[in-house]
Order: sequence, then C-alpha cells, then structure tokens
Amino acid sequence: MRYSHFLGKTKREAPAGELSLNAKLLEQAGYVNKLSAGVYSYLPLGKKVIDRIAQIIREEMNAVDGQEIFLPALHPADNWKATGRWETFDVLFRLKDASEKDLALGPTHEEVLYPLMKSYVKSYKDLPLSVYQIQTKFRDELRSKSGLLRGREFLMKDLYSFHSDQKDLDEYYERVVVAYKNIFNRVGVKAIFTDALGGTFSHRSHEFQVETSSGEDTVYYCQKCDHGWNKEVVDEDKMDKQKCIKCQGELVELKCSEVGNIFKLNSKYSEDFDFKFTDESGENKLVIAGCYGLGVSRLMGVIAEVFNDELGLCWPENIAPYKYHLINLSKDSEKAEKIYKRLSEKDLVLYDDRSDSVGIKFKDADLIGLPVRIVVSDKLSGDEVEIKDRVSVEPRVVSENSLS
Amino acid sequence: MRYSHFLGKTKREAPAGELSLNAKLLEQAGYVNKLSAGVYSYLPLGKKVIDRIAQIIREEMNAVDGQEIFLPALHPADNWKATGRWETFDVLFRLKDASEKDLALGPTHEEVLYPLMKSYVKSYKDLPLSVYQIQTKFRDELRSKSGLLRGREFLMKDLYSFHSDQKDLDEYYERVVVAYKNIFNRVGVKAIFTDALGGTFSHRSHEFQVETSSGEDTVYYCQKCDHGWNKEVVDEDKMDKQKCIKCQGELVELKCSEVGNIFKLNSKYSEDFDFKFTDESGENKLVIAGCYGLGVSRLMGVIAEVFNDELGLCWPENIAPYKYHLINLSKDSEKAEKIYKRLSEKDLVLYDDRSDSVGIKFKDADLIGLPVRIVVSDKLSGDEVEIKDRVSVEPRVVSENSLS
Repeated sequence: MRYSHFLGKTKREAPAGELSLNAKLLEQAGYVNKLSAGVYSYLPLGKKVIDRIAQIIREEMNAVDGQEIFLPALHPADNWKATGRWETFDVLFRLKDASEKDLALGPTHEEVLYPLMKSYVKSYKDLPLSVYQIQTKFRDELRSKSGLLRGREFLMKDLYSFHSDQKDLDEYYERVVVAYKNIFNRVGVKAIFTDALGGTFSHRSHEFQVETSSGEDTVYYCQKCDHGWNKEVVDEDKMDKQKCIKCQGELVELKCSEVGNIFKLNSKYSEDFDFKFTDESGENKLVIAGCYGLGVSRLMGVIAEVFNDELGLCWPENIAPYKYHLINLSKDSEKAEKIYKRLSEKDLVLYDDRSDSVGIKFKDADLIGLPVRIVVSDKLSGDEVEIKDRVSVEPRVVSENSLS
Repeated sequence: MRYSHFLGKTKREAPAGELSLNAKLLEQAGYVNKLSAGVYSYLPLGKKVIDRIAQIIREEMNAVDGQEIFLPALHPADNWKATGRWETFDVLFRLKDASEKDLALGPTHEEVLYPLMKSYVKSYKDLPLSVYQIQTKFRDELRSKSGLLRGREFLMKDLYSFHSDQKDLDEYYERVVVAYKNIFNRVGVKAIFTDALGGTFSHRSHEFQVETSSGEDTVYYCQKCDHGWNKEVVDEDKMDKQKCIKCQGELVELKCSEVGNIFKLNSKYSEDFDFKFTDESGENKLVIAGCYGLGVSRLMGVIAEVFNDELGLCWPENIAPYKYHLINLSKDSEKAEKIYKRLSEKDLVLYDDRSDSVGIKFKDADLIGLPVRIVVSDKLSGDEVEIKDRVSVEPRVVSENSLS
C-alpha cells in the first residue's frame, strides 16, 4: 500500500484529552479513530491487525471443532426476559422498533443461541456441538475511558459448547484452554491462566490475564507453576498472598488486563429455555454447556499497550498490518518501486512514497511500528538496501532479494 | 465437515408461514435461521456462502484501490442532524444511551465517514481516496417479508470514493462499474446495468438488477445493447416501453431484484460537513464523492432465488459452501473416511456420516445443493466413486483421485 494516498496518516500529537495508552498510540499512528466514548472506527491499518488476530483465533477455534456462525445484534426482548437478564443486565442497550416492540442490542449471545440450538439438537447423537462467531457486541458502559479495552461497541469471539454429560464438557474445556494458550502465544503475548470468580451458574471461571501498566485487575501469579489467581478469588478464599497453594512457589502481585474469560455454564440457560436432549436410554436430559469469550478488539488494545516504546508501536510480526515499512531516500524511485511491486504481491509492505523529509518518514515509521524498516538510498549500490528491526537500534545492509 | 455433528441440519418442511422463496429454501436447508422479521442467524453453511461472496467482493474492491475499513454501528445523533437525516431517514433505528444521549444504528455510513475523512484529507495530494467496508447495517423496515432480500439487520458492502474534480470521479465511477460486473459474473448471476432515479444529490443512479420471479422492481431491458431502465425512470422520462433509446433494439419487461446501487454524491455531504481540500493553487474546494452499495446478504438471497429447482438449492461452484457432498452407502466407512480426510484438507467436502437411509441422504443432498455429490458404495471397486452434478440427472463413475 502507498502511504501517499492512505486513510489514516499519523497525527503530529496524540489525541487531546485521551487518557488511555492504547488509544493514544493507536489513534496517533492512524490505526483507529474515536467516534464517541468506547466507539472506534478501524482504519486500514487497524482493520488489518484485527483481521490477523481474528484469523489466528479462527484457526484455533476450528482446531477444537468449532463451527463458525454469525448471529444477529438485534435481539427480541422476550429472549432476554426468558433468562431474567432483561432487567438485570446493567449495560444492556434497549430500544424499540417501528411497531413498538422492545429490542436489545446483543452484549452476549446465550439468549439468542439457546433457542436456536434447541430447534436443532434433539438427540445425544447431535452432541457434542461447538459453535463460535466473531461479531460486534454492544454494552452501554458509562465509563469508557480505556480505549479499545472497554468499548461500548467492540469485536468479540464467543464460543459455546454443548454436551450430553459433565465429563464431556470437562474434557472439552481443557481443549479450549490449550486453544486459548495457542492463540495468545501466536499473537505474541504472555497470558496468565487465572482462577477468577464465576457467575450465578458456575462457582468459578478462568481468565487469561496479560500484565500491563494500566491493568484494571490484580493477579497473584506463581511463576513456578505458571498459574494466577485474580485478587477477587484470593480475597473470597482468604488465600495466602505470598505462597502458591498449588506448588508452594512464591506469588508476585501483577497489574493485568483480562483478554479472555471462559466458564462452564453447566445447565443454567438450558433450564431457562428447557433445552433438553434424548439420551441413549430414551430419557430427556438438560444439555450442559460451556462459554468461552475472547475480546478481539480488546486484545488488539492490550497488545498495543504491551508492545511499544517512547517512539511508538512495535507490532509482533504475526499480527503486524505489514511486515515492511519501505522508505525511499533516493532521488530516483525506480529501485524502491521495484521492491514495492514485488513485496506488494504478498501484501507485505507499506511504502512511504511521499515527498516529505527523511525525519518525518523515520518518525512515522517508528510511530506505526511495523517490524522491519527498509531504506533505499543513493549511498547503497546494486540490490543493496538498509534494513532495521523496529526494536533494534542498528541498521544493516542486505540484498533486497533476501526480503520476503 | 461431518454432517452428524453439525449445526443446521435440514428440516422436513419449509418454515411455516414463510412467503419468501429464498427464506424457504435457505431455512429448510439449514443455511439461515430466522430470529425475527428481517433478522437472521447465519448457520455454518450460510456463513460460508457469505464469506465466499465477501471474499470475491473484497478482491474486486481492492482491485479498484479500495482500502478496507470498519466503521461503528452506534452513531451519535449529531452526525445525523448535520445532514438533516435524523428527521427524514424513515427507517432509522433510534435509541438512547445510559447518559440519555441520542444514538442511531447505522443504516448507511456517510454521516460517520465524512467527519472522519475530513480529519485526514486536507490537500489535493491526499486525493483520490477510496474506502470500503463489509459491515452490518440496521434499517427499521415495517415490512420485512422477503427473507434476506429486505432485512432489518443485514450485511452490506459500502464503498465511498473521494475526488478533487468531477472528471476524476467520473473515471473512477466507470472503474467501479467494471468491478461490479466482475463481482456478479464471479458469483454466477447475470446483473443488468440499469438506469434508476437518484436521490436529492444526484439526478440519476445506477442499479444492478437480477431477474427473479419475486422481483420487486420492473426493468425494461435491451438485450442488444445490454442495458436496462428501471420503470421509475421510464415513467418519469415518458420513455418508449418497446424501443431502446440507445440502439433502437427491442425492450423486454422483466421482474428484477436489485443487488447493487451506485451513484455520484457529488458535493452533497461535503457541503453538510464543510469537507474541503486545498487545491494546487491554494484554493479551498469541496471534495466530491461517489457511493457504491452492494447488499451482501441480499445477494445471497437473490442467488438462492435464481439457483434452485423443485428439489432444493443449486449453488454455483464459486460460492457454494463446499464443492462436494460425500455420501457413504457402504457398510465399511474406510474408503469414505479416506476421501473425506483428503478433501477436508482443502475444506472442499461436507460428509454425511449419519446412519440414516439412502433416501434421506439423497434428499438432503438435493436440498443443500452442493455442486457435486459423491457416493461411495459396495457396487464400486477400488478407487471408483459415483459422482453426480447437482444440476444433472446422470451419475457417472470416476476415480476418487480425480476429485480436487
């Protein structure tokens, strides 16, 4: 992509009045643009990062037999009244349609998915079954001052699994834990598997927590057995804050941001919707289920908070919008154009083809934070180019043919 | 994918009370599920069709230098008041947030995109610039009885192009016409390029119209010069209904469904938002623009209405959820499993691995409408399988190795 004609060029300053680090970095570098509190537009660079994260998630969800679906955002109020959450879900956006019917904007999808599943799943032969979607959620948060970390409109992956017995759910749950670990490894963050409080339907849940300077959660983490406990659990269980109950290792207190939350719903919503299956002996039983959330846009925000320095963003290669940032300092653009053309075929390069000064181009490359900067200049001969990793100081000269 | 554990198995009957052909076909075959009038869930098969259509659209939009973005659905009322459409847009969903601020659910995105563009585009050097998204739109239609053809929540591709002068817009507009023709060719429908009425900002627009039995539009079509006129234009201009004004060819009257609508906005919204650029001589001028819509879920519905017979759906191969429908009639599943495994690697096959009768499996294969049915049976030896195109009567025997 050519930077001369591009939506989302860098701004000279971080957005005024913005408190959140991820929003400052992502807005200034042209990844996102704030429409209102907790509501962001994704510009071409931001859309690419979201797509790369989503693709990794999709591959890992498919690997645990998740079937991808796409559910609506407009929910009839009756579905939410059936579970009692029409009244109790405090951040539910409510509206009326032209015929004065009450609607909710989906903040989560149990209320829509369960009746749908019920119309298809009748027998033990239909189970187990797992479905997921990557879809926009709406939550009417009053305080949305954390950039992509707490949106009123945000992109979420939600996976739901349905089982005929507890053992099958328990085994599947462990497979999803592995899939989540794969996702976080692949996007480049260290996520701590953490015990957390559950809801009304499950004593406990698990969170995946990433250490960040602005983290809103406190996690007690044991490096020895690589496990964490959310402070809310530690307080409720009156746990020791120094010593790990699993391995006696030393606990450290970390500020963290949650990037995933998984829990067993067991029979909670199946009761609300009378969602039953016929087992092998002909008996009707409640379907039991698990629910596995992962905030896609939130994860992008957390990654931005983790991977940056005083000059700007520093994307891990797996999710960078482009691998290369190409800058031409030569009067003749022929060599740069040739490199651009070749690397463009695989969509690997952002080409700063503007007539601006070297200083501006280098500053912008640092702000945008692509993994490798390529410089073409008259100092270099033949097929030589200068490359520099975003996170290193030293440039080096290589043949342009070695770039791919 | 194995059909035994699959969300969206066929139903014995088309949904009761459903009037729309596309909804009958798609719901019975398990592609979509109706949540409320004009609001559909996309099940795994339907999600795959949407993804395939979206990918073709994306490739053609990228080919005309479109940059993909993703804009929010929650719009501040002020943006809509700036254009006057807060009051006049009759199908606008309106709601209030927790702090009692008025919001609209985006039915189109000029109101959000123009202020965004204005904050980035300052100079003639920034133009031209085209951006598009594939995103959910909301329109509070009172009559939503046409399945995917008139949704209250639906998936749309909207492209917007911004230019410094009329000539540049006119030239780009012609490129988009070609891109649209490519899209419709690739998904397998014949779309007629049709003159239609414009809005307040443009005397005329162009539509892409597909002949369907349930078509809500009337188009006068000239086969000789391959051009159509929407009846509303014919009536307004008091045109001859028999003879083409372009080539004197014979006009035929067709019932059609619109699948795309493109028009020049010229300076309409730029005036509302005072969106100007500085030209080469330093003068401030209004940016002029074009807008190009394509209903993605609507197109899926139209394709379903065009490609079917009395037994069910008949997908064109380019957008079929899978190419092959594999059925095992042999007592031993080894051969079928081997074929399934190989074709699954490229995600080419739906495998009906249920223990149901041959009759049920064949009936379901016809309902679902994948391009090629593969049957493994004890009648066939070695690597032989029987294949049958969905749209032909005669099966034939081939080597399974020839399938890819």
